[in-house]
Amino acid sequence: MTTYTAPLKDMQFLLHDVLAVSGRDIPGYGDLDAGFTAAVLEEAGKLASDVLEPLNAVGDREGCVLENGVVRTPKGFKAAFDAMKAGGWTALDCDPDYGGQGLPYVMATAVGEMFVSANMAFNMYQGLTHGAYSAIHTHGSAEQKATYLPKMVSCDWTGTMNLTEPHCGTDLGLMRTKAEPQTDGSYKITGTKIFISAGEHDMAENIIHLVLAKAPGGGEGTKGISLFIVPKFLVNADGSLGARNGVAVGKVEEKMGIHGNATCVMNYDGATGYLLGDLHKGMRAMFTMMNEARLGVGLQGYAVAEAAYQNSLGYAKDRLQGRDVTGAQNTKGPADPLIVHPDIRRNLMDQKSFVEGARAFTFWAASMIDQSVRSGDEAAEGLVSLLIPVLKGFQTDRGFEMAVQAQQIWGGHGYIEDNGVSQFVRDARIAQIYEGANGVQALDLVGRKLSTDGGKHVMAFFALIKGFIKENEADARMQPYLDPLKAASKDVQAAAMFFMNTAMKNPNAALAGSYDFMTMMGHTCLGLMWAKIAKAAFAGLDGGDDADFLNAKLATGRYYMVRQLPATAMHLARIESGADPVMALSAEAF
Amino acid sequence: MTTYTAPLKDMQFLLHDVLAVSGRDIPGYGDLDAGFTAAVLEEAGKLASDVLEPLNAVGDREGCVLENGVVRTPKGFKAAFDAMKAGGWTALDCDPDYGGQGLPYVMATAVGEMFVSANMAFNMYQGLTHGAYSAIHTHGSAEQKATYLPKMVSCDWTGTMNLTEPHCGTDLGLMRTKAEPQTDGSYKITGTKIFISAGEHDMAENIIHLVLAKAPGGGEGTKGISLFIVPKFLVNADGSLGARNGVAVGKVEEKMGIHGNATCVMNYDGATGYLLGDLHKGMRAMFTMMNEARLGVGLQGYAVAEAAYQNSLGYAKDRLQGRDVTGAQNTKGPADPLIVHPDIRRNLMDQKSFVEGARAFTFWAASMIDQSVRSGDEAAEGLVSLLIPVLKGFQTDRGFEMAVQAQQIWGGHGYIEDNGVSQFVRDARIAQIYEGANGVQALDLVGRKLSTDGGKHVMAFFALIKGFIKENEADARMQPYLDPLKAASKDVQAAAMFFMNTAMKNPNAALAGSYDFMTMMGHTCLGLMWAKIAKAAFAGLDGGDDADFLNAKLATGRYYMVRQLPATAMHLARIESGADPVMALSAEAF
Repeated sequence: MTTYTAPLKDMQFLLHDVLAVSGRDIPGYGDLDAGFTAAVLEEAGKLASDVLEPLNAVGDREGCVLENGVVRTPKGFKAAFDAMKAGGWTALDCDPDYGGQGLPYVMATAVGEMFVSANMAFNMYQGLTHGAYSAIHTHGSAEQKATYLPKMVSCDWTGTMNLTEPHCGTDLGLMRTKAEPQTDGSYKITGTKIFISAGEHDMAENIIHLVLAKAPGGGEGTKGISLFIVPKFLVNADGSLGARNGVAVGKVEEKMGIHGNATCVMNYDGATGYLLGDLHKGMRAMFTMMNEARLGVGLQGYAVAEAAYQNSLGYAKDRLQGRDVTGAQNTKGPADPLIVHPDIRRNLMDQKSFVEGARAFTFWAASMIDQSVRSGDEAAEGLVSLLIPVLKGFQTDRGFEMAVQAQQIWGGHGYIEDNGVSQFVRDARIAQIYEGANGVQALDLVGRKLSTDGGKHVMAFFALIKGFIKENEADARMQPYLDPLKAASKDVQAAAMFFMNTAMKNPNAALAGSYDFMTMMGHTCLGLMWAKIAKAAFAGLDGGDDADFLNAKLATGRYYMVRQLPATAMHLARIESGADPVMALSAEAF
Repeated sequence: MTTYTAPLKDMQFLLHDVLAVSGRDIPGYGDLDAGFTAAVLEEAGKLASDVLEPLNAVGDREGCVLENGVVRTPKGFKAAFDAMKAGGWTALDCDPDYGGQGLPYVMATAVGEMFVSANMAFNMYQGLTHGAYSAIHTHGSAEQKATYLPKMVSCDWTGTMNLTEPHCGTDLGLMRTKAEPQTDGSYKITGTKIFISAGEHDMAENIIHLVLAKAPGGGEGTKGISLFIVPKFLVNADGSLGARNGVAVGKVEEKMGIHGNATCVMNYDGATGYLLGDLHKGMRAMFTMMNEARLGVGLQGYAVAEAAYQNSLGYAKDRLQGRDVTGAQNTKGPADPLIVHPDIRRNLMDQKSFVEGARAFTFWAASMIDQSVRSGDEAAEGLVSLLIPVLKGFQTDRGFEMAVQAQQIWGGHGYIEDNGVSQFVRDARIAQIYEGANGVQALDLVGRKLSTDGGKHVMAFFALIKGFIKENEADARMQPYLDPLKAASKDVQAAAMFFMNTAMKNPNAALAGSYDFMTMMGHTCLGLMWAKIAKAAFAGLDGGDDADFLNAKLATGRYYMVRQLPATAMHLARIESGADPVMALSAEAF
């Protein structure tokens, strides 16, 4: 049996002490005073702990079942979905013109973390809907927005994203799904899409599929791809539901995890679709939503790790096994709790320092997205676009590893499904794969983002770190945080320099080091976060705030600095070994 | 659908070119000429590929089902078990006095690898039996041996090991299972044991449980523990089966993986047990079998990774996605195979260089066990005892990580259970947990083995590396292997020195770095193996042997040296940060 407690205090500390949101010059941020955010987060936390978390194991055990073309979600999901809708949680950061509450994205991110920690598979139903909402909101006509958005904001209708086909995932240029133009301006969509999360289920009146397909005349590869709205039920002019469209679920996949979410094969058989955005610009339309979508998956990485951490911490405090080597602690009991043992402590500190650092990174990135979208700040847009593949790739990798470490604390009991911690491992695994597998994130980072706008954004990132160090080095207390950050940043810069010097001659030299680069960037970003947290903690201590809480932050940050940041030197060494060791064998020699 | 091909050529190369087994002065090794080992390995490989591998997915899907006190194994398991018995594979390295074939342990290790790669869960039935066989063979009376061993060698009767109880795993001193002496010299065993692999099933006539329990008068903690033979069916004086004993399966656990093996709760209710070995010396009796048992689990780590590697390699060669950034390779096709991409290649090289290095480490360790057991070589016994926790902990950690990397190559398809690669991940996970969780391996290494016999064995390990380097440094071709090995070895020595200098004052300083030490030792051992392999490869090339094969070895070894060995510096940095960062928070501050 697992439990979940919302990390409200940590979230408030990040929002107000570290990010100082209410003082930021971003539209909507002025309303984010501590009282308001506390009220929102507390209510969301209750829903997460009391309603969503108890359904997590149920969803894992029951899964989604396809019977006669209908997908039955696990027992209790529908009632929980209704509760989520009734609380207005699906509308949090949506446009007030369509029934949304218009809160900044950073708030939706904090709330989303709690829902994911409590029940990742469940939260995907509204998460996917939000992605489809954003696509229609950004690219839809006024009529399309009026038709679909209000129902999607409320989650009366849910949404899906249809990209992958059996023979192509990353390489969408191979796509076969066709869109044939009709005389009335609509299209007939025909093809098979796979891995469609929430593709079919019993919790919504209608499902709005966004489908990538090739319409005639667009040319080869990804250039010919357009994006279409394909509703499960066609929508009449008065907004009522009309005929069933030519789209049907072919199969619900048996997966390693996220059993509570229906991952569907969707068959489109001359289904009526409506062009969304410009013809043959479907890929571009998808890309505009990519930052939020990938941040959402990077969030899953640490949010599941948070849940796993909480449950391993509880076990480490309760389970009596062995004695503290420096002297018994629980002298009245038959043994000491696991948490006395240094290697258990090492494991817990790995988890804690990752989760809290990743939360800071994610909130910071979300606030940059707000800055970009709400204030039109191009520098913020550039920086966040650079860091999003890092946030997605690094946080899902480490999130999975930390879930594995949490399971390890449970020993053999962690391998028994009844105890629930193995589910965190199985669920977390998918986040490394979907929304662009992590190798593709590394490729995006090194092959595209590093050189975007002549390398302006990565230079801005380095300047930001340098500026932070300069600004704070007069405070001697900051030294344990600034010195390792400086060293890590130097390693990252050396790696970027190596890429620049070699990539022109041999692009493989950069790509062979791309995964290491993503990882060292991730460590450096978390290092920067811990330095920012330390600064806020010292300021809080100076102001007489809660010393126990702030000192724990400082200790956790120091742990990250001395135990994790040394990884950047290893990654640099690997990168500087170049392409040769990686590419030395011919394909036949494997 | 997964497949498996036995790595016969690599095994032969290791046995004859790297380890030169037939020239070793160990009883039984003289018979291990290349023709003989090839014949044995080839036959074992056929059984693995043709019989065991096709049942791997079946076992995962069906699991073991408890009905009316009987455990039904997956369809096909019984026939495969009979085939394994008929081929004499269960008797390979057993004592000829009891029907065994008396082959060296290194041969059983090579054969075992193939069986584990093909079907880990299945192979545990005979693996556990072999463990119980060894215990009775080492500690049993002449009568006990005569009664049980012939049937266990043939696997007509299988065996189990019963240590864990619901409230104690690592800390066996808390054990509650009781043994009450009877007037006839037997004992009545009462208590509950959990996580009993192969505890009950339908493939054997009888099951011989070895059970740790507390008999009166032994004192507190582990001192009072004795080891008992508790047969499922009592054995009559003439060897026929008698009455059902008072032991029954209470539950078959639902686990994350190894579904094909029945993990049982076993209830002992006044069951008749016979003392095995000395009274109150049960822990010591268990320890004498620990090297082989832990080697067997470390073998599982890389053997499952080998299977995962093979299936990710096949996919990387077949799946067309994207184009080689340096120019299209598969110009007639719509895209290039995955294997052209540097990050896929990096992933594959990680797997390949680990699996082949770990195989060498395991065969080498197995040959040292032969040297210790068959030649009574105490230095070999000391060295292998030092390295066994490394072999178990490091290889199962990396084996799991490599299975995860293999799954990653499959993208979303790797997350779908039908495709079979997710099973490798779920199965591999248990090897990090059982037979002493890896944190316990690290504790054993740093808290016990480093200082055994005044540190003699770790000094011998360092001397062995130094000697190898000295012996080969005149060959300039060896430099890319020797230099990184020297650097890694230096890091390990510095870490050991740090422990020595701090552990007296603060044992936590050593224990906080124990996991890092285990990991850096693992990298160094694999580095040593790759240096040995390189030496053999150069010798082979000089002799005109298969250049493609040997050059691939050299390239794979170089990869390990430049891409993996730099990790030792990171681990050293962590270790040298000491206990403070790890132990800074009080338990309440988490």
